[in-house]
Amino acid sequence: MGPGPSNAAPEVLEALGRPLLGHLDPLFLKILDEIAEKLRIIFRTNNRMTFAVSGTGSAGMEAALVNVLEPGDEAIVAVNGVFGGRMRDVAGRAGAKVVSVESEWGRIIEPDDVARALDEHPDAKAFALVHAETSTGVAQPIDAIAQLVKAHGVLFVLDTVTSLGGMPVDVDGWGVDVCYSGTQKCLSVPPGLAPITFSERALDVVRSRRTPVQSWYLDVGLLEGYWGSDRVYHHTAPISMLTALHAGLGVVLDEGLEKSFARHAANAALLAEGLVTRGFSYVAPEGFRLPMLHCVRLPDGVEDASARASLLNDRGIEVGSGLGPFKGTCWRIGLMGHTSRQENVARLLEAIDAL
Amino acid sequence: MGPGPSNAAPEVLEALGRPLLGHLDPLFLKILDEIAEKLRIIFRTNNRMTFAVSGTGSAGMEAALVNVLEPGDEAIVAVNGVFGGRMRDVAGRAGAKVVSVESEWGRIIEPDDVARALDEHPDAKAFALVHAETSTGVAQPIDAIAQLVKAHGVLFVLDTVTSLGGMPVDVDGWGVDVCYSGTQKCLSVPPGLAPITFSERALDVVRSRRTPVQSWYLDVGLLEGYWGSDRVYHHTAPISMLTALHAGLGVVLDEGLEKSFARHAANAALLAEGLVTRGFSYVAPEGFRLPMLHCVRLPDGVEDASARASLLNDRGIEVGSGLGPFKGTCWRIGLMGHTSRQENVARLLEAIDAL
Repeated sequence: MGPGPSNAAPEVLEALGRPLLGHLDPLFLKILDEIAEKLRIIFRTNNRMTFAVSGTGSAGMEAALVNVLEPGDEAIVAVNGVFGGRMRDVAGRAGAKVVSVESEWGRIIEPDDVARALDEHPDAKAFALVHAETSTGVAQPIDAIAQLVKAHGVLFVLDTVTSLGGMPVDVDGWGVDVCYSGTQKCLSVPPGLAPITFSERALDVVRSRRTPVQSWYLDVGLLEGYWGSDRVYHHTAPISMLTALHAGLGVVLDEGLEKSFARHAANAALLAEGLVTRGFSYVAPEGFRLPMLHCVRLPDGVEDASARASLLNDRGIEVGSGLGPFKGTCWRIGLMGHTSRQENVARLLEAIDAL
Repeated sequence: MGPGPSNAAPEVLEALGRPLLGHLDPLFLKILDEIAEKLRIIFRTNNRMTFAVSGTGSAGMEAALVNVLEPGDEAIVAVNGVFGGRMRDVAGRAGAKVVSVESEWGRIIEPDDVARALDEHPDAKAFALVHAETSTGVAQPIDAIAQLVKAHGVLFVLDTVTSLGGMPVDVDGWGVDVCYSGTQKCLSVPPGLAPITFSERALDVVRSRRTPVQSWYLDVGLLEGYWGSDRVYHHTAPISMLTALHAGLGVVLDEGLEKSFARHAANAALLAEGLVTRGFSYVAPEGFRLPMLHCVRLPDGVEDASARASLLNDRGIEVGSGLGPFKGTCWRIGLMGHTSRQENVARLLEAIDAL
């Protein structure tokens, strides 16, 4: 019940432990096609170039940014927690001039601030935003910002590492150009892959670069050769992890996205009630809280490190520590994917009572 | 029996399918320490910073090069096949001025050519070489080149993706500064991780860079925070794959490195005899052939694609196609790690006879 990994679904662990297929075996190539098809449903996109980066969610972030940005480009990055800060760092290392739109940790990014930044930087090439800030538990509303970004014609890069599969993500509806996620949150697959999707507009931008993509490993133009119909060898795909992702996406779609969202919301409400009753308080304001990640201030009498150690050692329950300004005073409790279930909420509350 | 992945050892598949630990769980951190310790034995190094990159062997290559190279640096890269060519590409994308030392595909890199390049480029910062060229089956002798590189004081980057665990690799003895590998060859672990080791001299070079490492994800200075004793969160580690690597390294060390090398050599001799008898001929000259990867020209009467399809569909045996100049005329047959066993040699030869 930490901020990720979630518990893997049994179907995922079974798939993970299977003997390997070759990375160019026709049976495995069929699995790749099905992963892409399932990801299109979950991302809500028709993007052809929808696949999984061979690295964790942070590799997905880097793939998103280094493909569309090149030295001298201007990028606007929204920062209200660890992951917005990480995007700023990655964009800077890609040689971009980075402008930040900031909010206090625990608050949403305000559309007015985004509008101002877009107006002040008419040459910006991309705008990057985090949907579900895992460091604060803030759920970022997208609609108003998406309209602003669309009106200004800049590329929209969206981080859905923690949200995908657990709350609505609408890549095509929002006009997102590059959207990436991770496997270890609401998809209930171990960490190690980053689902990602590129719009045709984003791919056009990559194709018209003046300089090569700085990363050979993450170059979407080269990856297109393998994930597309040519099946050209690029690097040896992480076969077992992809087979596990295939199983995990199947589990998500078998349940159905709407049912998954409802389950995450219902268990979140149950946990929230129990936590507030026990004196915990949320960092994020009401109405802007993630259902899958609860960042809460500890009540008096609960000492961070010793209480977490006791939960882990005595009860086998992991919760995450606070990051940045919340270190030592907050916990991050995950109810993600397979971990989001009523009995887990009950177990945790009971364990807290016994502290 | 392709050029990788090899078959995973049963212990590895069992470890892969286990429920997850958290990436900061004390039990998991112990696994990380043990991975580093086992890798030091297999790489033959005392390097403190010995770990696994969260991506495939190609991510290891990129991690090696982008950490030590920065824009304007001069790098000498040896190219006699696909993977030398890939190193040249990656080094160029890191902004380095790249000088190639080339040999024909299927021949070794000649020490005299390396000596000439080192003399002509006294300001070169790094020299990069492939130990086991998977595209040609050539085993590169290291000793003479290692002495030249040492005498010139440049950083020595060595690719041991295909060799590590199956033939002697001696990082400290050869004076290698950055050495990387992959999991899916002689370590019998699925693809997805890249074991890597940095000498203190290489880490000093990284620390004294004028520019940040272009990749946040692969920045060894940041990764040191997690793999070192601080245990600072960087990215969520690929927990299941690392648990599998831990098991795979245990299998290698349980057998013993010398016994593993002897097994690879013995089965290679058996396969070579059978192939030559059947009219196959080796691309690499006698004395410079890899025991774990056999790149052989097809005899008359064997049609590449249809014969490979027949082996796969009728016998469940995968062999790899030729790359580059060998496409359509050669096969690449792997006898790596768990796949290197007498009965597999017999099965393949029997299947070839039945073509």
